[in-house]
Amino acid sequence: MIKVGIVGGTGYTGVELLRLLARHPQVELKAITSRKEAGMPVAEMFPNLRGRVKLAFSTPEEATLENCNVVFFATPNGVAMQQARALLDAGVKVIDLAADFRIKDLAVWEQWYKMEHACPDLVAEAVYGLPEINRAAIRGARLIANPGCYPTAVQLGFLPLLEAGAVDTAFLVADAKSGVSGAGRKPETHTLFAEAADNFKAYAVGGHRHWPEIKQGLEMFSGKPVGFTFVPHLLPLIRGIHATLYARISADIDLQALFERRYADEVFVDVLPAGSHPETRSVRGANVCRIAVHRPQGSDTVVVLSVIDNLVKGAAGQAVQNMNIVFDLPEETALADVGMLP
Amino acid sequence: MIKVGIVGGTGYTGVELLRLLARHPQVELKAITSRKEAGMPVAEMFPNLRGRVKLAFSTPEEATLENCNVVFFATPNGVAMQQARALLDAGVKVIDLAADFRIKDLAVWEQWYKMEHACPDLVAEAVYGLPEINRAAIRGARLIANPGCYPTAVQLGFLPLLEAGAVDTAFLVADAKSGVSGAGRKPETHTLFAEAADNFKAYAVGGHRHWPEIKQGLEMFSGKPVGFTFVPHLLPLIRGIHATLYARISADIDLQALFERRYADEVFVDVLPAGSHPETRSVRGANVCRIAVHRPQGSDTVVVLSVIDNLVKGAAGQAVQNMNIVFDLPEETALADVGMLP
Amino acid sequence: MIKVGIVGGTGYTGVELLRLLARHPQVELKAITSRKEAGMPVAEMFPNLRGRVKLAFSTPEEATLENCNVVFFATPNGVAMQQARALLDAGVKVIDLAADFRIKDLAVWEQWYKMEHACPDLVAEAVYGLPEINRAAIRGARLIANPGCYPTAVQLGFLPLLEAGAVDTAFLVADAKSGVSGAGRKPETHTLFAEAADNFKAYAVGGHRHWPEIKQGLEMFSGKPVGFTFVPHLLPLIRGIHATLYARISADIDLQALFERRYADEVFVDVLPAGSHPETRSVRGANVCRIAVHRPQGSDTVVVLSVIDNLVKGAAGQAVQNMNIVFDLPEETALADVGMLP
Amino acid sequence: MIKVGIVGGTGYTGVELLRLLARHPQVELKAITSRKEAGMPVAEMFPNLRGRVKLAFSTPEEATLENCNVVFFATPNGVAMQQARALLDAGVKVIDLAADFRIKDLAVWEQWYKMEHACPDLVAEAVYGLPEINRAAIRGARLIANPGCYPTAVQLGFLPLLEAGAVDTAFLVADAKSGVSGAGRKPETHTLFAEAADNFKAYAVGGHRHWPEIKQGLEMFSGKPVGFTFVPHLLPLIRGIHATLYARISADIDLQALFERRYADEVFVDVLPAGSHPETRSVRGANVCRIAVHRPQGSDTVVVLSVIDNLVKGAAGQAVQNMNIVFDLPEETALADVGMLP
Repeated sequence: MIKVGIVGGTGYTGVELLRLLARHPQVELKAITSRKEAGMPVAEMFPNLRGRVKLAFSTPEEATLENCNVVFFATPNGVAMQQARALLDAGVKVIDLAADFRIKDLAVWEQWYKMEHACPDLVAEAVYGLPEINRAAIRGARLIANPGCYPTAVQLGFLPLLEAGAVDTAFLVADAKSGVSGAGRKPETHTLFAEAADNFKAYAVGGHRHWPEIKQGLEMFSGKPVGFTFVPHLLPLIRGIHATLYARISADIDLQALFERRYADEVFVDVLPAGSHPETRSVRGANVCRIAVHRPQGSDTVVVLSVIDNLVKGAAGQAVQNMNIVFDLPEETALADVGMLP
Repeated sequence: MIKVGIVGGTGYTGVELLRLLARHPQVELKAITSRKEAGMPVAEMFPNLRGRVKLAFSTPEEATLENCNVVFFATPNGVAMQQARALLDAGVKVIDLAADFRIKDLAVWEQWYKMEHACPDLVAEAVYGLPEINRAAIRGARLIANPGCYPTAVQLGFLPLLEAGAVDTAFLVADAKSGVSGAGRKPETHTLFAEAADNFKAYAVGGHRHWPEIKQGLEMFSGKPVGFTFVPHLLPLIRGIHATLYARISADIDLQALFERRYADEVFVDVLPAGSHPETRSVRGANVCRIAVHRPQGSDTVVVLSVIDNLVKGAAGQAVQNMNIVFDLPEETALADVGMLP
Repeated sequence: MIKVGIVGGTGYTGVELLRLLARHPQVELKAITSRKEAGMPVAEMFPNLRGRVKLAFSTPEEATLENCNVVFFATPNGVAMQQARALLDAGVKVIDLAADFRIKDLAVWEQWYKMEHACPDLVAEAVYGLPEINRAAIRGARLIANPGCYPTAVQLGFLPLLEAGAVDTAFLVADAKSGVSGAGRKPETHTLFAEAADNFKAYAVGGHRHWPEIKQGLEMFSGKPVGFTFVPHLLPLIRGIHATLYARISADIDLQALFERRYADEVFVDVLPAGSHPETRSVRGANVCRIAVHRPQGSDTVVVLSVIDNLVKGAAGQAVQNMNIVFDLPEETALADVGMLP
Repeated sequence: MIKVGIVGGTGYTGVELLRLLARHPQVELKAITSRKEAGMPVAEMFPNLRGRVKLAFSTPEEATLENCNVVFFATPNGVAMQQARALLDAGVKVIDLAADFRIKDLAVWEQWYKMEHACPDLVAEAVYGLPEINRAAIRGARLIANPGCYPTAVQLGFLPLLEAGAVDTAFLVADAKSGVSGAGRKPETHTLFAEAADNFKAYAVGGHRHWPEIKQGLEMFSGKPVGFTFVPHLLPLIRGIHATLYARISADIDLQALFERRYADEVFVDVLPAGSHPETRSVRGANVCRIAVHRPQGSDTVVVLSVIDNLVKGAAGQAVQNMNIVFDLPEETALADVGMLP
């Protein structure tokens, strides 16, 4: 059994990790920390877990995380970088669901996250946990930077096009829409029901932290600088990201075949038949990215539609997928949920 | 392996049966029928099932349901009663998710369902599939009448009080609220998004078909006629029933202990600690009924709060639970999903 | 022109007052206070008001509210009672949308609101602003206690029955459901979109502050003590209250005629035809209470369905209605909005 | 008083016309037709209109529409073109809310609407009812083609850029999102609550009928052919369109000033301050288009955000605005509603 610890389990990625791990046959949940809620049974905060998770929140001191085999950080940005080294030194694998190790260029990271990085050498070592591009590296990694939710949906959508050199990289557009759970469980006015329901808006058009993360990936895929515009929007639904991607085609290529071939061996990426429109609910609760590719009205514009559940393939599910790879388990272990429809 | 057939799989109970059965380790899906959609792969209509269910819809003729071990009817009322006898004669177990075999008094049934019953003798034989009151009979049954969604939530909420003779049976009130999926997948004006969203109303206050079904159960529990008022409401959410039950206390009794004792051995009924308020989302996708019991302001009124997912414990999940009992499998097989929160 | 001031305009009742008053032909908005947001244009916080409301929030000191003809308090409980006397002494009419002056029994008020009352004599003077029972007193009042949202819907539903002595007052039940805007604009976890959407639950079954307010009214209508149970629930919609009321009939009476007669002259109470089910959306944005009365299955139970928009007839609209009465304007002035459907 | 008739009033644009016209001081509603519902009081189908609209639906024969001063067609495509000529000949003004007269190129219209046009000469005569570009022509028009909902939001967003020659017209992208009311009140599976709620998807990426309508406008604004990609999406909300527009800047120009100048005299177009993100709810129920313009990260890409209520500025409100212009009334008559927030 893999002994698992979770740091910071009071948010949505925390409870989603518990939902998935509670049914993982190879996992023994050892500790989940929250200094503020120490002593409270997890199932009291999250009653869906009643009868499934016996753990109570504990303080970091009580948790003895160094005895775990793997520790997930479901914490705000800036926490994992403070604690990762000690755990790694104790032989613990670390999977960070926050952004501390996602961006290789430290200056860029510090500009966007507005803090000094605590362990630059670990940034260099960390493996970006997108299995569809990095599976081999993940297998041997000690420290995994779990990708952001928007970056997962957008990168998987652009990947085949950029690897194949099929589009003009100077003008890539991602119009992305996310459910409200992506904003977390911290009370804020703009994510109140009475503010976000029956409403829709773009936000952070001037600059979002996932922009440099995605740009880093797109430039790696294409091997050169890209011009990339990213506009996130807030959807009045709980779970789900839909990324609509636009690019100008620069090579004569069968786009449908390109996507099908690229993801033929990927169990968690599902390329839909030509002419399809993926729905977010088709992946609700499931660790799947569903993608369709279009070329409207025979123009030279390609439109890619890419959907994920931001809490699963966009966070906790991908983290468990990474854990499965690290520990050499079948990648689908505990990730076989069918999307909940309706 | 249990060979399973489903009649009428294009509605919400059908797709939910598939979601659950697709991961049942002892089940082999043999056929799912829909005359209208014959030939269409199930996963084309319900893309959440892509990669999990290979079946296409077939005509009843092609389906050779008599070779199955069990057949589920996820059909409109009046269909199962036409086809059940032939299947039973062929040695097939039948589980009807519609109302054909739920009400023992034929005159009452025919009054509320406005048709003549096709097989009165099978009504007499059928076992009402609420495991918490009928487990032994279910085990040996050939024909199971799967309870309605409201009746499941309301009966489980009143059961301990009536068995214990703790309340005045002359004035029982169930104020019940259901998500829109309970109305099915057939297009109708009042269940359109633009009609049902951001809206709330009661309906069928003058009389709902679940009223006689519930009344039959309450009278069985209490052993005498009851005065019972049932008011259903349409909630602007997809899955979930919340029944709020009111009765006047007629015996001095520890209500919390009564409920905990009654359901101590029931894996799918969860009595919450005193003072709790169950949420529908805590059972979203899960085969669980969560119940809390209150006595507000020390009055002589008891208030019971009972929640289920209408498509799971209120329909497909309970049907699979019944199948597990009939085939002597562990009752939780394929029903271990944790409620999806958020 | 009536010079109007608003204290505490950053919440939902505040913005709703502004939406209504911005189009009131007899009103001149003089000041809206918020110490925290002083200096910010109101339309910056509430962009629906762009081009309609030029005011900026001001500090209470700057606001010179004593120069107004009427001041609305859209503040938390406990604020109006600190400031009302000075305004009244300056000849200003005061309409409190909070609970400071609603309950005549000071001991009860202090028990439920957990503070000492600052001005008991003003409680005695204050008029409870439910025009359908108190119009004459409102006309001459200096200080009006605007009713709570639940109390408006529940009292208007029970009023004809109790005045007529038609029901057993020992066992009155109100199963009430409110949209999330009723909880206000202050960020809290349980009213986040990802918590309250696609979800439903009861709350405060053990005791809610509107219980004693309603009970006071019911006892006034019936002239004797009542046994009253009140269970509020949180609906996943923004605006709207639906109260479902239950009582046992104790007199042989034509219920439909009783309700129609009682409200024949009330422009803001609409009794629906027999057999109807009012929808919350039919009053969305409108200052109307729609009511239907049922007697299901010929039993001795009466079921009343009563809907309002909690922010309009349940708060800001009723406050404007009271202002219109006080200043002898046509009661519908600025309250002619048709409910927004869909 | 202007005598008004409405053909086809059972859909959402019909009830919205009634909501607005019921309070129009210069309008006398003479008839609203529906062959299917003839005889039913309008307020029975739409209870928000109780007490405000006394009319019942009538057959076209009874309606004597030729006695009206203006007739609105709130009908499916293809109806107005059959009836417009007779009304025009009788001196009645005609405002078509459907698409019969929107596209000047008949071949294009017939290709997209898949029928033969009944009156090509009237297409030539009809004035496209977007007041911000066509006010003078509308004033003298007999026949007005009210613009589509998406076309209103998208054209108003691109208009200043194209008139100024500020962007590369070869690659214009509109990523548009609409609430479900845009799909109408006809029952269909994909617009059921249980299908559309808590869900998001693109649709008709291969081709949508609003694409040629928008393209016609963009080419008129810019005076040359444009490359234009349009991707509509279905939002889980009732009312609201949000168009996110992308183009490459080709001229050095102050974008904020450009937009503010272009719409300085437009009462129903509101250009937000730099850095803003308009919300659909800020225009809920209001006849307003709110626009913000961005240039993210100093790139050469301009992003325009444009929101309307699809039933108001996108349909019924704009139709009333056109009527006001035709009859030389103040343009805001009956259109002064403040957006409903929350």
